[in-house]
Amino acid sequence: MKFNVFTEMEYQVGAKSTLILSINALRNQHQTVLSEEFTLSPYIKTEELPAVSGENRLIRFEVEDPVLLKVSYKATVDNCFKLVDFADKPDIPVAQLDPSVIPYLNPSRYCQSDRLFRLANNLFGNIGNSFVKVLTLTRWINKNITYLSGFSNTHTSAFDTVTEQAGVCRDFAHLGITLCRALNIPARYFTGYSYQLKPADFHACFEAYLGGEWVLFDATGLAPLNGIVKISTGRDAADAAIANLFGNVLFTSMLVGCELAEGEVFESFYYNGNDTVGICYL
Amino acid sequence: MKFNVFTEMEYQVGAKSTLILSINALRNQHQTVLSEEFTLSPYIKTEELPAVSGENRLIRFEVEDPVLLKVSYKATVDNCFKLVDFADKPDIPVAQLDPSVIPYLNPSRYCQSDRLFRLANNLFGNIGNSFVKVLTLTRWINKNITYLSGFSNTHTSAFDTVTEQAGVCRDFAHLGITLCRALNIPARYFTGYSYQLKPADFHACFEAYLGGEWVLFDATGLAPLNGIVKISTGRDAADAAIANLFGNVLFTSMLVGCELAEGEVFESFYYNGNDTVGICYL
Amino acid sequence: MKFNVFTEMEYQVGAKSTLILSINALRNQHQTVLSEEFTLSPYIKTEELPAVSGENRLIRFEVEDPVLLKVSYKATVDNCFKLVDFADKPDIPVAQLDPSVIPYLNPSRYCQSDRLFRLANNLFGNIGNSFVKVLTLTRWINKNITYLSGFSNTHTSAFDTVTEQAGVCRDFAHLGITLCRALNIPARYFTGYSYQLKPADFHACFEAYLGGEWVLFDATGLAPLNGIVKISTGRDAADAAIANLFGNVLFTSMLVGCELAEGEVFESFYYNGNDTVGICYL
Amino acid sequence: MKFNVFTEMEYQVGAKSTLILSINALRNQHQTVLSEEFTLSPYIKTEELPAVSGENRLIRFEVEDPVLLKVSYKATVDNCFKLVDFADKPDIPVAQLDPSVIPYLNPSRYCQSDRLFRLANNLFGNIGNSFVKVLTLTRWINKNITYLSGFSNTHTSAFDTVTEQAGVCRDFAHLGITLCRALNIPARYFTGYSYQLKPADFHACFEAYLGGEWVLFDATGLAPLNGIVKISTGRDAADAAIANLFGNVLFTSMLVGCELAEGEVFESFYYNGNDTVGICYL
Repeated sequence: MKFNVFTEMEYQVGAKSTLILSINALRNQHQTVLSEEFTLSPYIKTEELPAVSGENRLIRFEVEDPVLLKVSYKATVDNCFKLVDFADKPDIPVAQLDPSVIPYLNPSRYCQSDRLFRLANNLFGNIGNSFVKVLTLTRWINKNITYLSGFSNTHTSAFDTVTEQAGVCRDFAHLGITLCRALNIPARYFTGYSYQLKPADFHACFEAYLGGEWVLFDATGLAPLNGIVKISTGRDAADAAIANLFGNVLFTSMLVGCELAEGEVFESFYYNGNDTVGICYL
Repeated sequence: MKFNVFTEMEYQVGAKSTLILSINALRNQHQTVLSEEFTLSPYIKTEELPAVSGENRLIRFEVEDPVLLKVSYKATVDNCFKLVDFADKPDIPVAQLDPSVIPYLNPSRYCQSDRLFRLANNLFGNIGNSFVKVLTLTRWINKNITYLSGFSNTHTSAFDTVTEQAGVCRDFAHLGITLCRALNIPARYFTGYSYQLKPADFHACFEAYLGGEWVLFDATGLAPLNGIVKISTGRDAADAAIANLFGNVLFTSMLVGCELAEGEVFESFYYNGNDTVGICYL
Repeated sequence: MKFNVFTEMEYQVGAKSTLILSINALRNQHQTVLSEEFTLSPYIKTEELPAVSGENRLIRFEVEDPVLLKVSYKATVDNCFKLVDFADKPDIPVAQLDPSVIPYLNPSRYCQSDRLFRLANNLFGNIGNSFVKVLTLTRWINKNITYLSGFSNTHTSAFDTVTEQAGVCRDFAHLGITLCRALNIPARYFTGYSYQLKPADFHACFEAYLGGEWVLFDATGLAPLNGIVKISTGRDAADAAIANLFGNVLFTSMLVGCELAEGEVFESFYYNGNDTVGICYL
Repeated sequence: MKFNVFTEMEYQVGAKSTLILSINALRNQHQTVLSEEFTLSPYIKTEELPAVSGENRLIRFEVEDPVLLKVSYKATVDNCFKLVDFADKPDIPVAQLDPSVIPYLNPSRYCQSDRLFRLANNLFGNIGNSFVKVLTLTRWINKNITYLSGFSNTHTSAFDTVTEQAGVCRDFAHLGITLCRALNIPARYFTGYSYQLKPADFHACFEAYLGGEWVLFDATGLAPLNGIVKISTGRDAADAAIANLFGNVLFTSMLVGCELAEGEVFESFYYNGNDTVGICYL
């Protein structure tokens, strides 16, 4: 499925500063960037950093002088999804987990799974099938947490959200991840361009590692799971921020979009009934 | 400098469980393990996992049946240190930081640097030399935080410690790391066997990345900096726990030791005066 | 019903200090102290303070010199209970609440009801009868929170307990109060001597203001509701601490007891079925 | 000194609701309300509640039907201040404190003094004179906390503010109170109309109980201490909220003002030098 994605952002730079942006569509075996264009106006030389933690394409550059900086990115991306039936798929015990997955069991900045152990196990511990477990906790979040812009901020963590019960996609994802890890299920955060998300914005969701697959979940239910062009994955938003600003920089405006490429026909995928079929990047 | 290190730990396993231990001395270019012996009694096959996040040597194994498990590790390790004068050493700006170092600028589970930005900059922001900045904040922690066993627990974070002002080595390290990151200085947590630490125990300290070097700091001041045999490094204790237990396992006792190998002569190194000389692993 | 209650406490006083103790059985229209004896050894003059906030009998005294202080209190107390059927009893709306009750709607140190508004209403908001609402939330606490000595400490609040789901009687009471207030039901904390509580200790429970009555609830379910000799009521444990120590004082040991007076026959009262009958002090 | 104060507030009431407002100038021995007018438009019968906790004049009323409600209050108030020299004024030890003052030593919702004990004593514990102690901590807050609208919210407490170091007058007052109580100095919160406060708004400050007097402090330094017409005092903002809303009510707009009555000459009082003279209501 091919998508055209784009963003335009403006930053008011007041003095020599460094920006590290994470807005480029991920290039990996699951997602092909057919074409892309990253532009700074005025022109500044940029550097794409190799991913160190999680998957991402960090663009780093230094702005020497005060300027109103316009960042523009557009790309055509092809990604494919597969459906996996978890009805009879056995769990992978911790004893056999791939080492690369183990860090996603640990608590992280916004996902204090160590403090939600009893809550997660009280609510979901007796569900036998791990896929159903994660789907159930995703729906529990969707039912109990109110989507409310402006309620939370960049310091808000899952420990807050589980009790205050309001937030945005980032908070929904953090809570999902935290509950998974508290249940000994590896889980990670990802950001992306999201087709049919209204209002248009960057989106944040999570993946749980089930039976050897990273399966997609979106506790907000605001957009189809097969319409997300991935930007980055990480432990939580601390790893996968859209922008890290060092110096005197003020974010002033943003446009984000994700559209179907010409000729594509889209059939949206959401988890609906009580089935056991999960969706993963192919 | 050669050290003999050892630990003996006992776990009461009540049912099939998986343990991931991080007690083996690190093997890297800075530290040579001359000999070592890891023993489980009763014998169980173990697996050493490749490091994924930070540096460590995780030993994973599964215990099938209820048992009182004895873990024993001893090693002779050679590590060397160098002194680096930071009086005139220029900082490396974020724009030129090695990408592998950038994750150590992010907040993490126990180090919410995003919430300590103003505090760190109010207290230490006007110190020009970055080494002096970190040394000053380390001494500020040492002066203001009371070393107190039993005050904090595994959920305690730097956000708690900076106000409650009591804790153990882990808490001192977390606060040091958090203040560094809030000042845009990369910092990481490490655990180790520590010579002359009283009472004998595993130790936790931190390293700040200054002028291209990972420089050692110990806000507790309880042991010489050149007497630490490293076990692991990570963002914080979530990455570098001595043990991660999955299943029905109870930690029941522990002995830890670090001694000078025969024939070695040790001259302890602490930061003392107002100098600008830091210590790093060679 | 007559109870013999007693406590013996020891404090190691290291320098001139002031103690304010709240261990005397409350004297009010609901509870008659038939006889009592408060003794300090060595003898020190004490002062009983008039209650300012909540109900209590604070005993204040100053210790001039270092000493091992023994505090002893015993009393015979008569209290009576009444059963009130809330099946058809109308609620008192906030517009008609007695002004003295209104402060018990506000959040307090350990009861951050302002942060649990959504959670309380999601869980219990659709229950029509207020007594059933409080009984249901009490049972929810009892089912979900694990009674665990040593898990929480004097800083632990309902905001922690609702997620960490472990604690002692104090934590159970704080969570009950917080949920009530978040549902616009006034609620207060009380301490007491508790018959049949095992192990013997001071107890903490809560009262909710329903239909003009302060109704007793104990989310721990550890002791009969009609066996509690009240010591104090307040907004939470900040108002109703057993002891407030100013100076150099160390609490070293304590004995607490509550027994039936001779000749009394006790029939324990717990909330059991789905009934609508609450218990209040007569 | 006579002041004309006024406020106009609008509430959008969507369904039957109860409001409890605390906007009337306090009437007590320190402050005389010469004339006042409280108006609801449309007219609704109101009730002034007797103060239960702290000092206040709560106005309670019920709105039956959806309406845009306009609240208007204006008053002419006479209050006088006295200056008290604390240079040689002895402290009142806890052993002799008036019982009515003791609750102001306890932690409260937004003032977790139990968690700031070490911090307060590390920073200010060695200052001998209690007035100087409170003045010093007030200046420490003023220097370290940034006044920043929109940073904090109604859930923010002193435990947050002491580390995050930004907030509004309410947060400044909460932190001042918390530090006082952690130093065993009773302290309470108050709200008022404030002359020369820019932009015009309700103000929040605190009083510390020193040598038998409630002495005024304003860590924001935004307005003269002798220009505040008191509305209410309490433990913290949980006791002294401008409005408590029960039901479906939305606050939509507000005007606040405080002007000198005709013919009055005002000489503003701030703490300036290193003197020991405090200001209290006469």
